[in-house]
Amino acid sequence: MAGKKNKMVYFFGPGKADGKAEMKNLLGGKGANLAEMANLGMPVPPGFTITTEVCTYFMKHKGKYPQGLTKDVETSLKKVERIMGKKFGDSKNPLLVSVRSGARQSMPGMMETVLNVGLTTKTREGLIKLTNNPRFVYDAHRRLIQMYSDVVMEKSEGIDEPEEGMGIRQQLEREMAKMKKARGVESDTDLTADDLKELIEIYKATVKKVLGKEFPDNPYDQLWGAIRAVFLSWDGKRAVAYRKIEGIPDEWGTAVNVQTMVFGNMGDDSGTGVAFTRNPATGEKIFYGEWLPNAQGEDVVAGIRTPYPINERGKGEQNKHLPSLEKTHPKVYKQLDAIQKKLEKHYRDMQDIEFTIEQGKLWMLQCRVGKRTGGAAVRMAVDMVKERLINKEIAVMRVTPSQLDEILHPILDPKAELSAKPIAKGLPAGPGGATGRVVFTADDAVEWAKSGKDVVLVREETNPEDVEGMRAAIGILTARGGMTSHAALVARGWGKCCIVGAGQMKIDAATRKMTIEGSDIVIKEGDWLSLNGSKGFVYTGKLPMVKSAEENPYFRAFMKICNSVRTIGVRTNADTPEDAAKARAFGAEGIGLFRTEHMFYGAGSEEPLFKLRKMILANDEKERRAALKELFPHVKKDIKATMEAMAGFPVTIRLLDPPLHEFVPQTESGKKELAKALGISLDELERRSEELHETNPMLGHRGCRLGVTYPEITEMQVQAILESAVELTKAGKKVYPEIMVPVVAVDTELANQKEIIDRVYDEVRKQKNVRKINFMVGTMIEIPRAALTSNKIAAIAEFFSFGTNDLTQMGFGFSRDDIGGFMPDYLKKKILPADPFQTIDQEGIGELIKIGIERGRSTRPNLKVGICGEHGGEPASVEFCYKVGMNYVSCSPFRVPIASLAAAQAAVKDKQSKPAAKSKAKKKKSAKKKSKK
Amino acid sequence: MAGKKNKMVYFFGPGKADGKAEMKNLLGGKGANLAEMANLGMPVPPGFTITTEVCTYFMKHKGKYPQGLTKDVETSLKKVERIMGKKFGDSKNPLLVSVRSGARQSMPGMMETVLNVGLTTKTREGLIKLTNNPRFVYDAHRRLIQMYSDVVMEKSEGIDEPEEGMGIRQQLEREMAKMKKARGVESDTDLTADDLKELIEIYKATVKKVLGKEFPDNPYDQLWGAIRAVFLSWDGKRAVAYRKIEGIPDEWGTAVNVQTMVFGNMGDDSGTGVAFTRNPATGEKIFYGEWLPNAQGEDVVAGIRTPYPINERGKGEQNKHLPSLEKTHPKVYKQLDAIQKKLEKHYRDMQDIEFTIEQGKLWMLQCRVGKRTGGAAVRMAVDMVKERLINKEIAVMRVTPSQLDEILHPILDPKAELSAKPIAKGLPAGPGGATGRVVFTADDAVEWAKSGKDVVLVREETNPEDVEGMRAAIGILTARGGMTSHAALVARGWGKCCIVGAGQMKIDAATRKMTIEGSDIVIKEGDWLSLNGSKGFVYTGKLPMVKSAEENPYFRAFMKICNSVRTIGVRTNADTPEDAAKARAFGAEGIGLFRTEHMFYGAGSEEPLFKLRKMILANDEKERRAALKELFPHVKKDIKATMEAMAGFPVTIRLLDPPLHEFVPQTESGKKELAKALGISLDELERRSEELHETNPMLGHRGCRLGVTYPEITEMQVQAILESAVELTKAGKKVYPEIMVPVVAVDTELANQKEIIDRVYDEVRKQKNVRKINFMVGTMIEIPRAALTSNKIAAIAEFFSFGTNDLTQMGFGFSRDDIGGFMPDYLKKKILPADPFQTIDQEGIGELIKIGIERGRSTRPNLKVGICGEHGGEPASVEFCYKVGMNYVSCSPFRVPIASLAAAQAAVKDKQSKPAAKSKAKKKKSAKKKSKK
Repeated sequence: MAGKKNKMVYFFGPGKADGKAEMKNLLGGKGANLAEMANLGMPVPPGFTITTEVCTYFMKHKGKYPQGLTKDVETSLKKVERIMGKKFGDSKNPLLVSVRSGARQSMPGMMETVLNVGLTTKTREGLIKLTNNPRFVYDAHRRLIQMYSDVVMEKSEGIDEPEEGMGIRQQLEREMAKMKKARGVESDTDLTADDLKELIEIYKATVKKVLGKEFPDNPYDQLWGAIRAVFLSWDGKRAVAYRKIEGIPDEWGTAVNVQTMVFGNMGDDSGTGVAFTRNPATGEKIFYGEWLPNAQGEDVVAGIRTPYPINERGKGEQNKHLPSLEKTHPKVYKQLDAIQKKLEKHYRDMQDIEFTIEQGKLWMLQCRVGKRTGGAAVRMAVDMVKERLINKEIAVMRVTPSQLDEILHPILDPKAELSAKPIAKGLPAGPGGATGRVVFTADDAVEWAKSGKDVVLVREETNPEDVEGMRAAIGILTARGGMTSHAALVARGWGKCCIVGAGQMKIDAATRKMTIEGSDIVIKEGDWLSLNGSKGFVYTGKLPMVKSAEENPYFRAFMKICNSVRTIGVRTNADTPEDAAKARAFGAEGIGLFRTEHMFYGAGSEEPLFKLRKMILANDEKERRAALKELFPHVKKDIKATMEAMAGFPVTIRLLDPPLHEFVPQTESGKKELAKALGISLDELERRSEELHETNPMLGHRGCRLGVTYPEITEMQVQAILESAVELTKAGKKVYPEIMVPVVAVDTELANQKEIIDRVYDEVRKQKNVRKINFMVGTMIEIPRAALTSNKIAAIAEFFSFGTNDLTQMGFGFSRDDIGGFMPDYLKKKILPADPFQTIDQEGIGELIKIGIERGRSTRPNLKVGICGEHGGEPASVEFCYKVGMNYVSCSPFRVPIASLAAAQAAVKDKQSKPAAKSKAKKKKSAKKKSKK
Repeated sequence: MAGKKNKMVYFFGPGKADGKAEMKNLLGGKGANLAEMANLGMPVPPGFTITTEVCTYFMKHKGKYPQGLTKDVETSLKKVERIMGKKFGDSKNPLLVSVRSGARQSMPGMMETVLNVGLTTKTREGLIKLTNNPRFVYDAHRRLIQMYSDVVMEKSEGIDEPEEGMGIRQQLEREMAKMKKARGVESDTDLTADDLKELIEIYKATVKKVLGKEFPDNPYDQLWGAIRAVFLSWDGKRAVAYRKIEGIPDEWGTAVNVQTMVFGNMGDDSGTGVAFTRNPATGEKIFYGEWLPNAQGEDVVAGIRTPYPINERGKGEQNKHLPSLEKTHPKVYKQLDAIQKKLEKHYRDMQDIEFTIEQGKLWMLQCRVGKRTGGAAVRMAVDMVKERLINKEIAVMRVTPSQLDEILHPILDPKAELSAKPIAKGLPAGPGGATGRVVFTADDAVEWAKSGKDVVLVREETNPEDVEGMRAAIGILTARGGMTSHAALVARGWGKCCIVGAGQMKIDAATRKMTIEGSDIVIKEGDWLSLNGSKGFVYTGKLPMVKSAEENPYFRAFMKICNSVRTIGVRTNADTPEDAAKARAFGAEGIGLFRTEHMFYGAGSEEPLFKLRKMILANDEKERRAALKELFPHVKKDIKATMEAMAGFPVTIRLLDPPLHEFVPQTESGKKELAKALGISLDELERRSEELHETNPMLGHRGCRLGVTYPEITEMQVQAILESAVELTKAGKKVYPEIMVPVVAVDTELANQKEIIDRVYDEVRKQKNVRKINFMVGTMIEIPRAALTSNKIAAIAEFFSFGTNDLTQMGFGFSRDDIGGFMPDYLKKKILPADPFQTIDQEGIGELIKIGIERGRSTRPNLKVGICGEHGGEPASVEFCYKVGMNYVSCSPFRVPIASLAAAQAAVKDKQSKPAAKSKAKKKKSAKKKSKK
């Protein structure tokens, strides 16, 4: 821009501004919003914004300003003086200004601010006369020196914050502490006007001594020093680091806002406050806020004085005795209320506003989109659609997935959590919060829970035998395992609070105690623990809980909006009729993953698990077939009930997947019982189960590999599925079973299993005397080789379901159970931007998915494609699935709302990015219908 | 061809033929060679070939012949009659013919043959008069009925071989048995002419009764029936199954050869023999063969009579007392010798010939390329190049990799093996043979070997602690594990005989016994076992061994030829100076994989392993650094010595790869010793090592993941490498270390390690006061994600080495240690054509390799690419590596010759497939030079 005459300084003042809200890139967020409010005729303290382009120039030219800036700033300053009737540097009626940064995107606390610029030995005298408040003026002067010497003088010298040792700010603070000690007072506010006047001289001397130069007593020197310091702070250490993390480009630059200072602490006709156009905690449509008379902004937020309610309606328990602005300053309140209404209508979103009343006059200092709780976000989105303030697509974008998640689970009270200190941190494996008594075994969990106690089950790691205990527990905590470890998978499936891989815990289950590494905390059985499963924090004691809003009507209305906006299907991973029903209530349109093996994760000799074990440890095919026959009714019952619960929608049933050794009994008594039932010695049982042991079970004899070596296992399952389908159809239900063959690496594996399925199909038709059974045969794509050769696999498979857990394991060569050793380092050292088991690695694993879909559809253009890994409920992954053209995503019942929201947001984003052309969202409508059948 | 007038029948006779050797597709192998011999003026019994096109027509038109065939056959038959002076169907001087199949590619025993066609009640009388040998004639007639009724009458009725029950052949055989019983004789030959005459009538009656029609007594009916039967046999069950296995297209069809019968059993002036133009066992250039007077072809091969030597020079121990053809029939011998010389010169390869002498006249019945042993193949190739019979490229194609392998290792005497029965079968993991006494522990192996005993170490599976015992053993046998299990890898690296995964063995190490499932064999410690490591067979007892020809001059000359023909580099995987030297002697041009961890596969507290364990179980970085300091001299010593042994060539050193838990001591005493050395309790040691335990170690904390979490481990290794390089360079050696970072999945991992390497580089340069050290930094591509994102990885890596073992494990999701449960089924059911750990799966894993190379070179066009998995020594994989453009392959020292041969063959094939255009082979010359540096 060198030489070009781009406008460098944008003026704003009551009723008029050069800029507007849309000019965030040029004016920064703060400057643009101030301009917008000014344009709306609101009482904004006048000022001006120096553009981000000036910053860019400044950076490129090593601290030089573009030609003409000085003049432009002076012109704008003159305008401000005119409006305020004050003069910058005037000894009688001086104008003071603030100098603040303001980037395109908020970078809270990363850059510099200087207040009270223009206050000098000369101007302060005028101000004292005007305000008749010497203490206020000296204090302001003292603050200026403290802030300016640090921000402008020390830093613009190129001395960045000293990491150790003392900067000028600390040295000045020490001087103040000395004076307080000398005066025998505790608080800054106890220092008198004279004290402060004396302190100002001490400050100046210290600045001279430490920094080797005089504190500038000229207002213009102060102004340009402050502007320079703000620009320089764009390249300060903190800001650069922050930008790197947030991915903000260096070339954006910051704007500088120079604005008239107004003071809420100039007497009882002054005051300051913060307000929201709706209640940010509940979303209720009431003007909600707090204020304090005769106070500065920080007083309201600092929490030293209890702030007053802004109006009568917003009064709560803790402040109902305090006077509201509505009562004490009805005229100002009326003006403010009108402004807030106008702002919300204008911005079409809840606004967070800051205001100051200076001697009876209302000034608007800030307005921005207000932060809100999950519950409030949902309610506001729903309400605003009803009010026709926004449309459904905008509503969908107003709630983040984590806000939605927030309201799905009971959580630890955030306030209580603020003042508690975590004793350990693990991976946030199951959502929500939990508080209960510690037990160290699954049996204890069951027993204690029976006697009505809330328990937290603490284990080194969990295995299928712990499942009863996990179900009984209110929360689960393990020392080992990753986001997709057994404990995490099971807990998430139930929507149960769970933290895994809290490696600092040293558990001694034998003595029922655990210690925390690096501390002397000892936790015994029965002690209270509280878990924040959404963040992975563990606390001692019993923290209060906040109820989930799961059943609230706004949530349901919001889900309807999401479901109407999204264009791809959302299914659920469900293994029981209960889960299916729950997910259906959340809007799931079918089951994307029914795991046959689920029913075996229980215990007791009468149970299916026992029969499964007999099958697994059978000595030959004959014994195995006999055991399978016993198993058959259990398998069929589960499948049939689940298909019935999901009638009208497709149900994808995955054939037996895990390596058999996973089901072998581990306890002595379990082994004995089984040996007896099989009529073999314990030694023989040990031998047989030892034979099943594998070095790397994840890469072992599992999935379709079992079906190939033991065709009878596949036969039994297919028979159960097809018989269920026939019986349900005869009972008038519409069912669409989809048989899914897992762990396929080669098309011939699927061909082998398809042959068995076809054979059983013929048998069932004959036996049940029906002409046709409606079903599909497909496969999971979870092995890299399958993705690469999907063109051949799609010749047999009618659908693909991407198993992204295993695809990630094999694509990365990461065992999800074993990443604890290095994943923390990988995240810390930024080797990976995120745990790929939490969000799909789009670059690598995503490439496999893209290849898989592309090649698959090259063979079978109408191939139905979905995802059923844990990623199916993770927002960024859902968006990815949408982009690569999947027909649906599938996730655990509790993630269905999140997935629906993410799918809706993906559709909206897609539409927004292609305003002219026909969007993918539109084209996908048909895909969605197809997936629903 | 319907309607078109393609020639359907090709005549051949002494000195003249319509066809020639090149017409194999049309005439089949047999017909083409007969025509070729005829054209060379050799005495071939005249006949004619009906083309494969007729077969195709016949198949397509449901058993109809093309128009004009009958006439063409009759014309050719007339020609034959003229030459032989005999007439088909003549009662005085009858012509008999054989009718045989002959496909483009040999399908031994899969199709039909009918001999003595033309023999009828009428013609046999003439023959008896002519031969004066009624028994011979009746026997021929009896054979005709037996063969014809089965092949022509039963099968052409569409009744394929009855699987159970009795076919006509069996029923006739039963009649013959009855007669032998009645006559009280044992052998067929004990039946007299009259017996046979009577038997013929019984045969005819049985045919009538069983098949419901008369046996044809008309020569033309017989001829056309036989032709039809041969054509039909192309679509017989056996032939179709064989074609499916061998990948022979159905549309090739077979030719039919009708040829004059000649008889070697017509008295002492008749005879028959088989001969080779060179010795097929040794390769020596002498005419070598066997014959028998007054005999038919099968008598020579059946082994009932000891055949006579063909000449004096070829006499051996077992037949030196028997008369040679050279002595007894000098004229015929001279003619035969001239023919064989001419044939070898003509075909430029050793020929296997069959001849018959009928009443003093020599007839040539067959000539084809002769089968030979590995040693013979090598010698012939070398000799023929010297004789200028063939060029080097042809020589290279004359030896198969398995023939070369054969001569590299001592093997069980093939003859002894023929008569022994394997008691178990496993995977052929280490080449050659071994015979020794069984021990069940590594310690026993060491001890017994010290006392001079040859031992076979039998283990459930092996682990690093067994290495000493494995080294001491002469052969290794395990019940579990696949082709790339620990035992297999170690054994193959040493070229040691090894069989793994022999699952039938039930080992009880405690009682030092094992049993074989499904048998009552018990093998105790000290019993003799013999292993065929090239086939995976296990025998009881001590089978004799045959010495390897490794050091023979022909082998060395042949390797020189291969090395001069191949165009890509061959390196070795070597971890010691000894291995490096051995491989170098075999022609290796560098080390493609030096595994740092190799030196730790030993035992004893003074050893590096112990120091490594101290490092692994260190409690913090400080302890770890101290242990690394102790380890450093060991690591450096090994690296330096190996680099020195390979001076002049590049050495790729892979940084520490395996998961640390692999090195944790397993024995009580080992643990105690280590605990003491670390100054911690046994409990604490157990706890630390338990922490390292992983569910799926293959996908766990290994490779660069260790280097990321423990940078000091990488530092130590890099320091050792670079210091070695400096010191060797100062000593005048040319060294080219290539530092290889393993298990990279993400480019940022490599960037992280590269930073460490660069830092250590600067430190070593400073410390050693040198300006520059010659080295490269690269990575293994062994994780699917790395292959897919190789464009980013190549921005950092200067070379790629494909780790195809792990790439196969992760690409397939197959743990090489755990495939035993399903791989046998997969191969049996043809789900996989081969074990992908033995030969690269070109479709899937090959796709990853192709993508990896293509994307890598898109970023860095001169990227050096090699392979260092076990596949680097497997011929089909080597050819694949050549095709995808790798610069070199690397394999264990004993595989270097195989890899060189395979590389040479790949280059020749490539050149042959592109005769006109510039071949890849030519373009690659530069690549080879580059890889050699």
